[in-house]
Amino acid sequence: MRAAIIAIGSELLTPHRTDTNSLWLTERLNDLGIHVALKVAVPDDRESLCSTLKSLLSRFPLIISTGGLGPTEDDLTRESFAEALGLSLRFVPEIHEIITRRFEARQLPMSVNNRKQAMVLEGARWLRNSAGTAPGMYLDRSGITLVMLPGPPHEMRGIFIESVEPVLRSRSGGSRIYRRLLRATGLPESALDDQIAPIYAAYPEIETTILASVTGHEIHLATVAAESETADERLGELSRRIADRLGSNLFTTSGERLEAVLMGMLVQRGATVSAAESCTGGLVSKRLTDLAGSSTYFRGGVVAYDNAAKARLLGVPGALIAERGAVSSEVAEQMARGVRAKFESTFGMGITGIAGPGGGTEDKPVGLVYVSVADERDAVTRRLSLPGDRQHVRAWSAQIALDMLRRRLLSAS
Amino acid sequence: MRAAIIAIGSELLTPHRTDTNSLWLTERLNDLGIHVALKVAVPDDRESLCSTLKSLLSRFPLIISTGGLGPTEDDLTRESFAEALGLSLRFVPEIHEIITRRFEARQLPMSVNNRKQAMVLEGARWLRNSAGTAPGMYLDRSGITLVMLPGPPHEMRGIFIESVEPVLRSRSGGSRIYRRLLRATGLPESALDDQIAPIYAAYPEIETTILASVTGHEIHLATVAAESETADERLGELSRRIADRLGSNLFTTSGERLEAVLMGMLVQRGATVSAAESCTGGLVSKRLTDLAGSSTYFRGGVVAYDNAAKARLLGVPGALIAERGAVSSEVAEQMARGVRAKFESTFGMGITGIAGPGGGTEDKPVGLVYVSVADERDAVTRRLSLPGDRQHVRAWSAQIALDMLRRRLLSAS
Repeated sequence: MRAAIIAIGSELLTPHRTDTNSLWLTERLNDLGIHVALKVAVPDDRESLCSTLKSLLSRFPLIISTGGLGPTEDDLTRESFAEALGLSLRFVPEIHEIITRRFEARQLPMSVNNRKQAMVLEGARWLRNSAGTAPGMYLDRSGITLVMLPGPPHEMRGIFIESVEPVLRSRSGGSRIYRRLLRATGLPESALDDQIAPIYAAYPEIETTILASVTGHEIHLATVAAESETADERLGELSRRIADRLGSNLFTTSGERLEAVLMGMLVQRGATVSAAESCTGGLVSKRLTDLAGSSTYFRGGVVAYDNAAKARLLGVPGALIAERGAVSSEVAEQMARGVRAKFESTFGMGITGIAGPGGGTEDKPVGLVYVSVADERDAVTRRLSLPGDRQHVRAWSAQIALDMLRRRLLSAS
Repeated sequence: MRAAIIAIGSELLTPHRTDTNSLWLTERLNDLGIHVALKVAVPDDRESLCSTLKSLLSRFPLIISTGGLGPTEDDLTRESFAEALGLSLRFVPEIHEIITRRFEARQLPMSVNNRKQAMVLEGARWLRNSAGTAPGMYLDRSGITLVMLPGPPHEMRGIFIESVEPVLRSRSGGSRIYRRLLRATGLPESALDDQIAPIYAAYPEIETTILASVTGHEIHLATVAAESETADERLGELSRRIADRLGSNLFTTSGERLEAVLMGMLVQRGATVSAAESCTGGLVSKRLTDLAGSSTYFRGGVVAYDNAAKARLLGVPGALIAERGAVSSEVAEQMARGVRAKFESTFGMGITGIAGPGGGTEDKPVGLVYVSVADERDAVTRRLSLPGDRQHVRAWSAQIALDMLRRRLLSAS
C-alpha cells in the first residue's frame, strides 16, 4: 500500500523548523509493509489545506496528517478537511467531557476554544489521546483512509501506536518490513560501498542503504516478508557476508553506537579508560560518558589546552614539547601515558592536533592530528591528516581515537 | 509572491533522511520577500514527479525543485517535468562540452549517461553549475516560473546564488525580509513569551517567532520592507525594548551563540577559565573549545568521574566527599577552586550531579546537579533540579554553568 503524509503547521514553512514526525511515521508504516510515496508540508491556512488534501485524494489510498488539531484559531485542519471532503463536523459530547475532566484534574481554566476539539468529521471514528486534549480521527471513505493526528510528537506517537497501527496491521495481510542495522568505521563511504556492493547485489529482495556518518557509516538492510523466519534467515546471511568482508572495520551487526560497543568490550574485560585531550577539547570524554553506566569503565579525563597544563597535569616533559612541538607523535604518546598513570586506568588516550581554522603552518597544517592509545606495555600512535573545518576535524579525531581503542581491545582479546 | 519547493529523491521518503535543502532555500527566498507556501518531498519516480508538478502548476507562480538531475537511471526530473509540461528536451552541445572538459581535467572516464545532463527543457535557460556536472534550469511559461536545481547542497546553493537570486531580486520590486536574532537563557520559554508578548504585539509588521533551545531560546524578528532604514529602525526599537524587559536573561541581540558571547567577555577582560566536570563528562570543555581562538581564554579541564580523581587531580578532600557526598554544594565549590588553582586561571567551574537514569536516591534524585563558579575571592554555587533524561540533564547542566560564568563576568564589569 502507498501512503502520503501531510505535515501541517506554518512553522514548518520557515527556515527554522522542519517536519520530523514523518520520519518516525515512515518507519512505523514501513514496518507494516506500507510505503510512503509522498510527503508534504502545509501551513495552517484553509485554502492550502483544502487544495492539498483534494490533490492527494485521487492519488493515495492512505493519507495521514499531523498537526493543526489544537484549540487555537490557527488550528484549521478539521474545518479545512471537512470542506475538502464535503463533510460536516459533529459535536461529540464524550470528547468534550474528557477534555473538561482533563482541565479539572489539573485545576486549569478551560478555554471556550477547547470546545472545537470535540468536533469530529461526519463518519469518522475519533481516537483517544491519552497525552493531550486533541483526539485523532480515522475515516474510511470511498476506498480512501484518512488518519488525522495531532502535531506534538508524543501525542502523535501515542495515538498511532494505540489506535492506528492495530487497524493498519489487520489490513496489511501480515507482511511487514524486517530490518538490520550494521555500522562500520575506518574506511571512506565509497570504499565501503565498493567492497560490499557485489555482496548485497545478490540479495535483490533486501533493500540496502548506506548512510555516511562520522560516528560510523550505517548500513541499513530492510526486507518485506510474511514470516520472520524467512526474513531473519536472509538478513542474517547477508549480515554475516558483509561482516566477513569488512572484518574489523565493522563494529556492530545489531545497531549499537560505537560508545556502546566499547562499553561492552571494556566491561567484559574489566578494563578502564581515561583520556587526555587537546584539540578535541573534551569531546572524547563527552562521548565516553554519553551512556548511563559509564562510571564503571571511564575513570576521567584531562583537557590540556596549553603546554603548561600538558606538563603539570599529565607529566609531559616541557623539553619534549619544546623540541618536538605540542602537536607531535611523542607528545600524543606522553599524554596517553600520563593520563593513564594519573587516573590509574587500564588504557590512556592522548589526542593533540590543529583543528583550525588558524594555527596551521607549512610543516604542521590544519587537520594534522596525533592520536595515541597506551596500556601498561606500550602505546600505539597514529598520525592523521583530516580535511574539513574545525567541527569536522574535531569530530573525526574523536571518532578515530575511540575506534583505535576498540581495535586495541579487539587485538588484545 | 508565493513559492512551492519540490525536494526530489527516494531517500527522502525513508525513515533515515529528510530534506534540508528547503530550509536554506526558504531563508534566501524570504530575504527576497518570497513566501514559501508549500513543500513536498517526492521519490525518483516518473508518475509521482509528473503528477506532483501538475498539481502545483495551477497553484503557485514560483516552483523550485531540488534533486534528480544526476546522470544515473534514477534521475528522472528532466523527463518527468518535460512530460508534465508537454515540452520536449533539447540537447545543448555547450553543456556537453563543459561536462566533457570537467571529466578530462580530472582524468576520469565519462559515462555515456552524462549525455543526458546536457538535455534542457524547451524554452528554458540553463544555469551553469561550477561545483558539479548537472546544470540547473530556469523556465518562464504562462506566468509560472519553474527553477530546477541539483540536489547536492553546495551545487544547489552555488547555482541559486549565482543565477537565480539576481533574477528573482529584480522581480521582487526591492522589498525584502530584514531579520534580527536575539537569544535569552535562564527562564522557561513560556515565561519568556509571557514577558515579551505584550511588547512584540505592538509591532504587528514584525513577525516574532520564539524557538526554545537548551543552548538559549531564540527570538527571531523578521519584517518585510522596501528600505533598510525603516526596517532597521523598527527592528532596533523592538530589540531594545525586549532587551530592556529581559535584562540579564538576554545575552545577545546580534545572534551569537553563548560560547561566542563568553569569548568576547573573557578576551575583553583578559580573563581565563578552566572547568572541572563530573556528570557533564567534558561537555562544558567541549562547548568552550567549539570556537576557533578558544586557546586564548580556555586553560583546560578535568573530567573527574570518580572520587579518587576528584581528590588527586583537583585536591577535593576525601573527608569532604565522605561527609557531604560527591554530589554536594561543597564538592562542587572545591572542584571549581581546585581546577582554578591547577590551571592558574581567572575562573574555575565545578559541576557535579546525577545525570541518570541510575544513581539517584531519595535524598539525591536523578537531575540533582550542583554548579559552582570560583574566582580568586569567592565561589558562587547553585543547586539545580533538572527534569528529563540523561542527555537533557547533561545539556542543561552545561548551559547553566556557562550562563553562570557569563553572569559572573557581567556583574564584575
